[in-house]
Amino acid sequence: MTGPRYTPLALSLPAAVPFVGPETHERERGAPFAARLGANENIFGPSPRAVEAMAQAAAEIWKYGDAQSHDLRLALAAHHGVQPENIMVGEGIDGLLGCLVRLLIGQGDAVVTSLGAYPTFNYHVAGFGGVIHTVPYKDDREDLAALFARAAEVDARIVYLANPDNPMGSWHKGAEIAAALDTLPEGCLLLLDEAYVECAPEGTAAPVSADDPRVIRMRTFSKAYGMAGARVGYALGHPELIAAFNKVRNHFGMNRAAQAGALAALQDQDWLAQVLAQIEGARAKIAEIAAQNGLSALPSATNFVAIDCGRDGAFAKAVLDSLVDQGVFVRMPFAAPQNRCIRVSCGPDAELEAFAAALPRALEAAHGAG
Amino acid sequence: MTGPRYTPLALSLPAAVPFVGPETHERERGAPFAARLGANENIFGPSPRAVEAMAQAAAEIWKYGDAQSHDLRLALAAHHGVQPENIMVGEGIDGLLGCLVRLLIGQGDAVVTSLGAYPTFNYHVAGFGGVIHTVPYKDDREDLAALFARAAEVDARIVYLANPDNPMGSWHKGAEIAAALDTLPEGCLLLLDEAYVECAPEGTAAPVSADDPRVIRMRTFSKAYGMAGARVGYALGHPELIAAFNKVRNHFGMNRAAQAGALAALQDQDWLAQVLAQIEGARAKIAEIAAQNGLSALPSATNFVAIDCGRDGAFAKAVLDSLVDQGVFVRMPFAAPQNRCIRVSCGPDAELEAFAAALPRALEAAHGAG
Repeated sequence: MTGPRYTPLALSLPAAVPFVGPETHERERGAPFAARLGANENIFGPSPRAVEAMAQAAAEIWKYGDAQSHDLRLALAAHHGVQPENIMVGEGIDGLLGCLVRLLIGQGDAVVTSLGAYPTFNYHVAGFGGVIHTVPYKDDREDLAALFARAAEVDARIVYLANPDNPMGSWHKGAEIAAALDTLPEGCLLLLDEAYVECAPEGTAAPVSADDPRVIRMRTFSKAYGMAGARVGYALGHPELIAAFNKVRNHFGMNRAAQAGALAALQDQDWLAQVLAQIEGARAKIAEIAAQNGLSALPSATNFVAIDCGRDGAFAKAVLDSLVDQGVFVRMPFAAPQNRCIRVSCGPDAELEAFAAALPRALEAAHGAG
Repeated sequence: MTGPRYTPLALSLPAAVPFVGPETHERERGAPFAARLGANENIFGPSPRAVEAMAQAAAEIWKYGDAQSHDLRLALAAHHGVQPENIMVGEGIDGLLGCLVRLLIGQGDAVVTSLGAYPTFNYHVAGFGGVIHTVPYKDDREDLAALFARAAEVDARIVYLANPDNPMGSWHKGAEIAAALDTLPEGCLLLLDEAYVECAPEGTAAPVSADDPRVIRMRTFSKAYGMAGARVGYALGHPELIAAFNKVRNHFGMNRAAQAGALAALQDQDWLAQVLAQIEGARAKIAEIAAQNGLSALPSATNFVAIDCGRDGAFAKAVLDSLVDQGVFVRMPFAAPQNRCIRVSCGPDAELEAFAAALPRALEAAHGAG
């Protein structure tokens, strides 16, 4: 009595988890977190109109969601001034990344990303047999020129760029990215992850036509719109690439209430503006807390702030461990030298006060450990 | 300025939609359906406790769902008398099928299913380069012996069996399936889709150990539990196979409100029992409506009924087209001779009365067309 036969690729894959979730941490430590500041969730929350739309939709949850996410797609098209054919709605950016990688990357195909950038993208690339080539950050920013140059060297099919960047919160001007497209190698797609772009200064979103076949942009309702648990993201791109998602996506995979919630959230731009102001305020507070502890916060165009702990990764890890022990969930970059930082999500005063209260002891503990 | 380079597999795939959704039909016809009886949704709806849990969770939707669906998985394990390690929760059976196929099927690998069985499974197999071998139905039931024999002939890695069956509503006794496992070829996994099993007579669920490495079972909250739009399904199987899903699944892909809703639905078995009684009543009513029109309904162990229209597929299609024109959404089997039937989902009286009112004219129209 033997088990199933796996593909060679499946056999070669580790049972990797790109991130350990906060609930998993909580179960391991046997207590809930006092402040949930590690997953770049938006504690300021979604528009009450979105909450109401989801609650209403719960009563009709016996219906499958619309396989075409038609109403949401049309509203997004109007919002961005593009055609519905330029937009694919999917189960968060994570789900869309999986589909995109599946369409473009086979065994041995090259992909370029920054060392220490979004691990879930790398997870998908490895999951389809792709080969990841990394480029180091430069001054805590993704290095656009080096990324594109490396893409040419290795004949990459995808080059990944998050703008603004996660985990550092740094950013490029959109115009610089648009200008750099001239140096993007033929046959290499720029995957521009703009998950945090609503939080960024005017001009950060790249002024690239949705019909440009060289670029696909990813957006989400998980961050500024405060709906991470709903799983709604969308891709903006050339109609041919957008249509290709229909070859592999889970056509009835969207949660119906999430579709309704995202539509309501999009229609409440006043709420978004208010949340963005709160995020800006929280960034300043986090920087202040860092300064009060003799640390410096990096400038951020996102809903989180990277705090430079001033020493190496081991030191920052000790700070992080103590924070987590004290009930403050934060995360940190994976790669040196960015891993000298801890990454703290924006949140209301209560959460930031919990962080402020825990940080001095965490630094003390880390100094003691060193 | 060229577009991206797709994999050879992606280039070979059609932009296939396994099913056209009811909203798509409604947009095409420019009017909503009076009765939505085509997608085997459960119009009797979910437990009010599930609706309440989802509405409550909407306010916390800023949090990602638990990547391990821990609480739901533990409750399901207790419900089935198995270990949590035997259970993988995923984005509906459709999502789980995609992961399973990805783990087991590579280019050219053989898969066996019944001709006219669940097209979304075939979509996933084709999507990973698998080769589908089909076996005809026998007396409107899936032919267990022939499926397993065919699996041996073609060295299949997966043999798919839905019990009860969709689209015919027929079923095998669970004990027959368990006994037949002795004839399942080595290295071939039985994928037992039990999406409708709660609606079936006692003894239909196969008495197979969750630790049996030869079988994986799929269950869902979309049918009897009335939560199709939530996208919650689960797989029951050997811990090694269950763990393998962690290599490829979207770890944070579950909607947080859906997790809470499914847990509440599972805990309300009284509601489930009441809905199952309503489904049984609706099956009888559909059979009665068929008889009143000189047609015969097939016995059903599901939340839908196949009605034999008494002639060929073209005739049944004409009946279906007229029903749809009259605002009654139903579907029909894809393959002959099952496509002599139309497939009508169970529902409350209002919906079934709309169907009863439309059927005579549909039959008249079909006779006229013939």
